Parts: sequence; C-alpha cells; structure tokens
Amino acid sequence: MTETLHGVIPYIATPLDAAGQVNRPVLTRLCDHLIDQGVQGLCPLGSTGEFAYLTREQKAHVVETVVSAAAGRVPVIAGVASTATADAVSQARDWSALGADGILAVMEAYFPVPETGVVDYFTAVADATDLPVTMYTNPNFQRSDLSLSAIETLSSHPRIAYLKDASTNTGRLLSILNRCGDRIGVFAASSHITVAVMMIGGLGWMAGPSCIVPAQSAELYRLCRAGDWDAAMDLQRRLWAVNEAFARFNLAAAIKAGLTLQGFEVGPPVAPQAPLSAVQVAELKDILKGLGAL
Amino acid sequence: MTETLHGVIPYIATPLDAAGQVNRPVLTRLCDHLIDQGVQGLCPLGSTGEFAYLTREQKAHVVETVVSAAAGRVPVIAGVASTATADAVSQARDWSALGADGILAVMEAYFPVPETGVVDYFTAVADATDLPVTMYTNPNFQRSDLSLSAIETLSSHPRIAYLKDASTNTGRLLSILNRCGDRIGVFAASSHITVAVMMIGGLGWMAGPSCIVPAQSAELYRLCRAGDWDAAMDLQRRLWAVNEAFARFNLAAAIKAGLTLQGFEVGPPVAPQAPLSAVQVAELKDILKGLGAL
Amino acid sequence: MTETLHGVIPYIATPLDAAGQVNRPVLTRLCDHLIDQGVQGLCPLGSTGEFAYLTREQKAHVVETVVSAAAGRVPVIAGVASTATADAVSQARDWSALGADGILAVMEAYFPVPETGVVDYFTAVADATDLPVTMYTNPNFQRSDLSLSAIETLSSHPRIAYLKDASTNTGRLLSILNRCGDRIGVFAASSHITVAVMMIGGLGWMAGPSCIVPAQSAELYRLCRAGDWDAAMDLQRRLWAVNEAFARFNLAAAIKAGLTLQGFEVGPPVAPQAPLSAVQVAELKDILKGLGAL
Amino acid sequence: MTETLHGVIPYIATPLDAAGQVNRPVLTRLCDHLIDQGVQGLCPLGSTGEFAYLTREQKAHVVETVVSAAAGRVPVIAGVASTATADAVSQARDWSALGADGILAVMEAYFPVPETGVVDYFTAVADATDLPVTMYTNPNFQRSDLSLSAIETLSSHPRIAYLKDASTNTGRLLSILNRCGDRIGVFAASSHITVAVMMIGGLGWMAGPSCIVPAQSAELYRLCRAGDWDAAMDLQRRLWAVNEAFARFNLAAAIKAGLTLQGFEVGPPVAPQAPLSAVQVAELKDILKGLGAL
Repeated sequence: MTETLHGVIPYIATPLDAAGQVNRPVLTRLCDHLIDQGVQGLCPLGSTGEFAYLTREQKAHVVETVVSAAAGRVPVIAGVASTATADAVSQARDWSALGADGILAVMEAYFPVPETGVVDYFTAVADATDLPVTMYTNPNFQRSDLSLSAIETLSSHPRIAYLKDASTNTGRLLSILNRCGDRIGVFAASSHITVAVMMIGGLGWMAGPSCIVPAQSAELYRLCRAGDWDAAMDLQRRLWAVNEAFARFNLAAAIKAGLTLQGFEVGPPVAPQAPLSAVQVAELKDILKGLGAL
Repeated sequence: MTETLHGVIPYIATPLDAAGQVNRPVLTRLCDHLIDQGVQGLCPLGSTGEFAYLTREQKAHVVETVVSAAAGRVPVIAGVASTATADAVSQARDWSALGADGILAVMEAYFPVPETGVVDYFTAVADATDLPVTMYTNPNFQRSDLSLSAIETLSSHPRIAYLKDASTNTGRLLSILNRCGDRIGVFAASSHITVAVMMIGGLGWMAGPSCIVPAQSAELYRLCRAGDWDAAMDLQRRLWAVNEAFARFNLAAAIKAGLTLQGFEVGPPVAPQAPLSAVQVAELKDILKGLGAL
Repeated sequence: MTETLHGVIPYIATPLDAAGQVNRPVLTRLCDHLIDQGVQGLCPLGSTGEFAYLTREQKAHVVETVVSAAAGRVPVIAGVASTATADAVSQARDWSALGADGILAVMEAYFPVPETGVVDYFTAVADATDLPVTMYTNPNFQRSDLSLSAIETLSSHPRIAYLKDASTNTGRLLSILNRCGDRIGVFAASSHITVAVMMIGGLGWMAGPSCIVPAQSAELYRLCRAGDWDAAMDLQRRLWAVNEAFARFNLAAAIKAGLTLQGFEVGPPVAPQAPLSAVQVAELKDILKGLGAL
Repeated sequence: MTETLHGVIPYIATPLDAAGQVNRPVLTRLCDHLIDQGVQGLCPLGSTGEFAYLTREQKAHVVETVVSAAAGRVPVIAGVASTATADAVSQARDWSALGADGILAVMEAYFPVPETGVVDYFTAVADATDLPVTMYTNPNFQRSDLSLSAIETLSSHPRIAYLKDASTNTGRLLSILNRCGDRIGVFAASSHITVAVMMIGGLGWMAGPSCIVPAQSAELYRLCRAGDWDAAMDLQRRLWAVNEAFARFNLAAAIKAGLTLQGFEVGPPVAPQAPLSAVQVAELKDILKGLGAL
C-alpha cells in the first residue's frame, strides 16, 4: 500500500462564496488546474483547507466536489478531524461513501488524552473503512501528539500506511523511518525542507503552498526522484520563500490570497480569521512573481 | 445587569445513554437535584459539560432539557463555543430561542487569531441576542486568550457583563476587577480558591465540582456573603480536595464518576476520553464521603 | 521553627556603583530604611536582588553588608542559587559563616533534572548548615520545579521549614498547606494576592515590591494579622498596582527605578538588562505617589 | 573568515576527578584521540562540556588544557556563557589570552531580555577580542533566543562569522542561510540531521556525539563534501541512533558514559545531574558496538 501515494499532494484551500457556502465552480476549476500542473494527489480538508472552521455539511460538499473534479485522475485524500472517536468514524465512512481514495486522520483534543486514547482514536478511524489512512501530526496547532512508540504501534495496522508531519523537527522523521521501515510512508508538511525529507526517504509532501506553486513543486519532486540533488536544492532555496511566508502569515489566509492573485475567487478565510493585509498581499505577490507563479 | 447572576452555578455534566444520545430523564433529575440543593443557576455546555465533544444536535437537546427542567426557578447560562464567528452566532441565537437566560461564550481557535479577531468574535456573540454574556477564559485548554485590554474593551459592550476565568492566576482577577470595576462581574472556576475570589469581590463560581457537592458549595457561598471568613476558610480547606481531584483527573470523567456514585446514571465521558480507573473512583468516593456528599 | 519567620521580608535590590561594585553605603542605608519602616526580615540575593547576574564575590559582599546593617534587628535570609549541588552547598556555608540567619534556596538547571536530583539538591543545601531553609519555587524563570510530592518529602527535613512561591497559582499554596500542615510555612511572592495568601494561612510575603512600599506592606500585614479583612482588601486593591507594574516590567529594573526615585542610588540593573524607559519611570512615579510612597 | 571553520568539531565533555577538579591527563588524551580520529576542531565548554555547571576556575583549566593539547593542530573554539554582559566579555578575553582560536558565544538569561539587549550582548562579546565568534542558539535549554532579524543584524559584525543551532528546526537554518548568505557559516547541533544541514549549505557540525563516534563523523563529513549523498545517508541512518540516545538521555551523562566505555575516565556528570543507569549504559554500549565505536 505504501507505494500508492507519493509526490506533491496539495492541501486544497476551501473556496467559500459571500454567503459562506462552498463555491463548487471555483473548487472544481482549482482541482483541474492543480492536476494540469502535475500534482500527484489532492487533499481536501487539511489544515489549510480550514477543516477546523467548517460545518459537517460544508465538509461533505468539499469532499464531494473534489472527488468529482478529480474524476479518478489522481487520488483524493480527505481529512477527518474530531475530538470524539464516534464523530471521526462517522466522517471517515461518509468520505468513503463519497468516493475518497484515502483518509487523512487528525485527532483534536480539548482535555488531555492519554496515549491509549490516542491509539484507540486512530485505530477506530482506520477500522471504519477500507481506505488507507495517513496520520497527521501537528504539535503547533493540535492539542494531542503521537509519540514515536504510538506511531510504531499504529504502523502495524494494515490500513495505517502514511504519516504527514507538520512539526519543524526533520530529525524526528528520520527516527520514524528508522523505527517503522516500510510500514509507514512519510510525507512532509511545509514546515520541513522537502528536499531534506526526500533525501532521508520521504515519499513527498502534503502541504498548502503547493496550491499556489504546483508546477514548481512538481518539478522539485521530479528532481528529487532523479537524485539530482544540486538542482533540487537550487530550486528549493528559491521556493523556501513561500514556506516562510506561509509560516509567518495565517496559513489559510496566505494560500487564499495567493489563489486570488492567480484568478481563483476563493474568498477570505473563515472569520474571525483575517485576510492578509494589503502589505502582506504585496509581499506574497512579489514572491510568486519571482517564482514565475504569477 | 451585573446584579442578576451570582452564587453557585454548576457546570452540568452531560448524561449520555449507551447509544450516545442525551439522557433527558437523568439530566432533568440532575437539574432538579441541584436546584433543590440550593444552587443559584445552571450552566449547560461548559467544559465539564463536554461542549468540545458533542454534536450540534446533542447540544441543542442539552439546552432544551435544562431550560425545561429549570422551569424558571434559576437562570440557565448556556455555553456557546466555536472556532468560527458565524457558527457561534448561530448557536447563541438557537440557545436564546430555546429559552436560555444567558450565554457563556467560549472562543476556540486552530490557527492563532490576533486580538482584533478575538474582540470581534465576542462582540458578534453579544450582538446576536439580547441575553447577557459571560466570557470564558481558559488558557490551559483553549488556544486563544483574552488580554486585560481586550477584556476592558469588551466590558463596554452593554451585554458583556461577566467573566468566568479558568486560569490558576487569582491575581489576574484582581487586575480585571480593578480595571473594569462594575462593568464586569467575575466568577471563579475550580482552579481558583473560591473564598479568595469572593474576598476580592467575585460574584460566585461557575464550576464542575459544584455538580457533586452542591449543598456544600451553597453553604460556602452563604458564609462568604455573610463575611464569616474564618468559617468559610474552614469549609474551603475541606472542599479543596474536590478541586484537586478535579484538576488531577480528566474533568468530565471525574464529575461523571462522582455523579454515578451519587445515583445519577450519566455514563462515561465521550471517547476517546477514558472513565476514571477503579482506583481513582475509590479515591473520589473517599473524598465525597469525607464531605458528606455520599 | 516555623514560628520564627513571618511578615514582610523584602527581596532587597543590589545597589551597584558605576564600576559594577556593590555599593555598600547605599545598601546599608536601604536596610536601615526598610527596618525603620517596619519590615520583619531582609532577603538579599533573591531574584529581585539579581542573584543570577552577580559574581560569587559580589554575592558575598552583599550578604556581609546586609548582615552588618541588620545588626540582629531582623533576620537576614540569604539567597543560595546554583545548577550544581556542590556549589550551592559552598554558598550556604559561606553565607552562614558571614552571619546569615536563614537560607533561601533556589535550584537552577540547564539540562532537565529528575525529581530525585531536585530533592537531593535541596537536601544537600539543608544539610550544609544549621540554618533554616526556605525553598523558592519560580516556574516562570527557573528551569526546575518542585512537585507537591517533592515538597512534601522535603518538608520532613528538620531544617526545611518554609516555602516561597512565585508562581501565580494561589490554589497550589492551599494544596501545599493542606498536605504539609505545620511542617512548612508559606510565603507569597508578588505574583500572589498577599491578602489571599494570608487568609489561607500564609506567614507573610518575600517580595521585591516591599522594597519600595515597606510601610504600606507592614500596614497590610498588620491588618491581615488582626483579621480586619475588609480594611486589608481595601489597602490590597490600591497596592496591587505595584505588583502589576512589577510583573509588566523587568523586576530588578522596576525596583531599582523606584528606589532611585526614593533617593537610593542603586544604579541600573546589570546589563544586558535595560533600565526602565522614561515613560515607565513616569508610570511608576505616579503609582508610588498615589500610595504615598514618594 | 567563514572559510576557516568547517567539519566535525566535537563538543568536548569535561573530565572531572573524584574531588571535582578538571582531570587534565584524561582531557589531554581525549583531545589527542579526537584529533587522531580526524576531527577538524575542538569545542570545550559547549553544553555537553557542562559549561552551566562549572566554576570560572574550572572553565579556565579546561580551556588551557585543550589549547595545550591541540597544539595548533586544529582550532579550539571555547565557550563563553553568562547572563551578564560584563562577565561574558571577561570570559572571552581570558579564553583569548589562553590561546583559544575562536569563541562560541552563549547568552543565558534569568529575566526576559528584549532583542536589543540580546544584540548588545553578542556584540559586546565579539568586540571583546579579535577572535571569530560563533553564536549558539538552543531554545530548549536557554532562556533567550535569537530571532532571524537579530541574527541578520549580528551577521554584519566583522567577527560574528558562524552560528551553531541546537533547535530541531532544520528549515530555520535554510532561512538563515537565505537571509545572511556568506556572512554566516552554519553548523548543526546533534538535534539536526547533519547530512540535511550539509546539503542546504552547512559547514559542518559542533556536537557532543562526535566525542564518541569521531571517526564515523569524519567519514560522514568526507562523504558529504564529496557529494556522495547516497553513501552519506546510508551512514547517517546508522549514526542517527547516537543522536537519538543523546536526546533521550541527559546529554552530558550520555557522552560521559560513552567515553568511559571507550576507556576515558571522565567521571559522572556534575551533581545533581545523574549518570546513566545500568540499563541505559547497556543500551549505549549496543549502539556504539553496532557502529564499530567500541
């Protein structure tokens, strides 16, 4: 199963119209565009997709639209996130029924949960459908974390096949690869240097910035796979400005601003998140122009 | 408006049956019991009420049931919590339509929100209905916080009348009272020594432990209001064991275990939260017996 | 032993001359002044005393000067702080030889130390001399902390008699008092509401602000001891502005600025700490004038 | 100046005898051994060298011994660390007078220091001698940090030429390289994957583990410089077990245990730090044997 997913899998921003409804035409056009630019998969309802700000109904609209737009050309990995196990299981089943090809599983928490509870949560999500599961770890924004031993335990589940890590600790990914071997395929978030993650054996990256620099991301992936590390690092150095902006600004706001500049009317992030200021938009514009993405 | 709310306002645990549905008979009986024991209000959908683990439908059932059970005998302050402003506004309107007497407003966050966004969120909730609003600050479990200057700004809103603080920093409450004067009435959470908060000018406390020691809490409130500080501290010292257990264990699990011991079949906390272990239940049993609450 | 220390024990700022030497005349005059204003003890080399910024030789000069100035009128509790057990033991012996009446023991850390190491450190300091020891806990600035069970264990040592806590968690002090009973006398830092700590059974406070409002602090202590809680709270509310300023500014800089305004030429804090800005000095001046301390 | 330092520069453990004195014969033999194994420099008084636990006199003995042992064969980069600017300047001058070839500058803090104070501190150290300065950032153990803009500012100083980073955030190093270009040479700590840091343009690594795997570290450096990334990653994967152990255990205890196994009688870490347990020593023994380092 670990051979299936690989490459550039953008975290897709969720376009909303003025009434707060999912903007299906824009989302469809965005998916078409990303596939045309060479990405290897699509991930709706990741953090950049504002899963934490959408209602259940909006989420279902997003998954349905992305599956329909992908039309089998690339796999769709849909985000499941909850504080409650039963709710997460229900989401996973719904996304599977809507045609998703895989699940990105996020565990939210309010009160602290002991490690057995964390393992139970991910196991229940993986048991809920026959889709492969990518565990998502983001110690900055989530209130739970997966320890190395929990990841090792979970890697034995026949459908828990991938991990996407949004910490900034690249060495931790090497520890995971050393421990779990072929049982877990590792994807980087935008907080990692993707070339470094590819070099230590990563499969690719699932990240917001690929929404606004998809062709450049696909080229970076090609260079890494070809082992052309010097050329890869040269491109990586230039692309890093996008990751830096993404980390400095609100993530959803940054990607939505970039997509708007590129002609996708995705709207502002869900309030009370604020859109980028005019100065920030100008900064992002310069970065995208410098990369040939505008 | 600040004279309306005062005293012991328990954060009510949410009884769920084996199918995960709100157990209305048990919830009704619990509300009757708490009112009989002398509490001055009821707060459904606080943190102890597991607002972070319930669906919107379950939340509505809870508010409806508590309003019906209270039957106007004491005010019902219903919890509103969301990451998204529009969703919070919608909850506030629904709880108002269901007959709540006040709103406890919690702001959740995934990505960091600048202070203007925080102020906008609480203002929007307060603008949504004509009910008085209690702001809830809990730096341990929430990913947003209200600065002193944000609280001061919000205190000028005609319907933002109270603050319930779940930090452990009692001195901060004195700073708030010094700054906002009569514009904000302060309630303690169980992380504070309630006698200390009453002495500095607090109105009472909104907290989970009062669910399982309601008569003792009402007596403590009476002693504080009478200025009988020596007797109050004597009772406070003994009651503190409940607050300590509450902080050491999972909050919802602790209160649900205590209520189960007292004959209220509230069930376990929502998974993946774990119920108390047998050893922890025994410890809680001893504490409740020592206080005459079992 | 726990009856010996009580009341207002200022953390004394360390006056340094332009060459960075301990300014003995100013320090002597400051000690005289504080005793004249009614404090019950003197604590050189607390955090406000910049123990973390002074050389061993400077520290010895400070202890020697304060002991000489106190001349037996009030007890002198001298700060011992180190990352290394042997160094702390050596300091304790030196301060004892210089005539200190008690030790304030601080444990510094660079690498994390397990609890057994923490207990060993405090035990070694207490074994080093026959002076009573006050444990100092400050989770904001120190990289080690004392758990409740470590405090309980240490409270059995015949010379570990007091605890001075600089967290903001007043409830934790009640937990300590409930656990350790008469074996530990509790002193508040300026992060606590002192009236609240007195009400729950505290002995007094060891804190920087008492350096600049000693008469007001002594009066507050008198009111608390007399059980005149209403008058105490009235004074406490006004004094709280000093604690707030102290928390908002650099602690040493704030106290040194206040003392300079009062005519004690203590100099600026040790670089790279910065003195208060002119605006901050003006703010402090207003506060002190409002309290009759200028 | 940035071309001077490069390669493997071990953070040397400080051997102490039973009386707590610097064990010069062992330290001399260790330096000889490391140079024989091919390291490119020596760094006494790094974190692994327990700078935070030694007296000023012990530190001087360490620098003197290492300079004498190196005998000009490799550069000696001596650690300067303090909370006080004047004390750091004095250390830098002393190490320069003792013959050090460079300064590793660490800023300690007790109270928070604003960025201007941080910049002033490092500038003062760099102004104190004519030696090149390496800034050391370790957000886990230090209470101050250098922002990207502070690093950029400091990089303009003619003698601030290197940065050694002990965060786990490898992407941050790429940001620094992109910002400062040739003005700052970057060294990795053991928290980074060294191959990744070499690939993004790093000069080498200054780290404790190289004390116990010096030949393997030198070989890894050779492979990286040769651009033989596949072979480098193969060796890196195996060496990573040392970094993991180092992070899991107390750093000084781990390196001292490894050196003791290799026949260098460096003694235990300074109390209250604890030596490794027998189980931990056995684990480290297996790792070293697996790498041919025992």
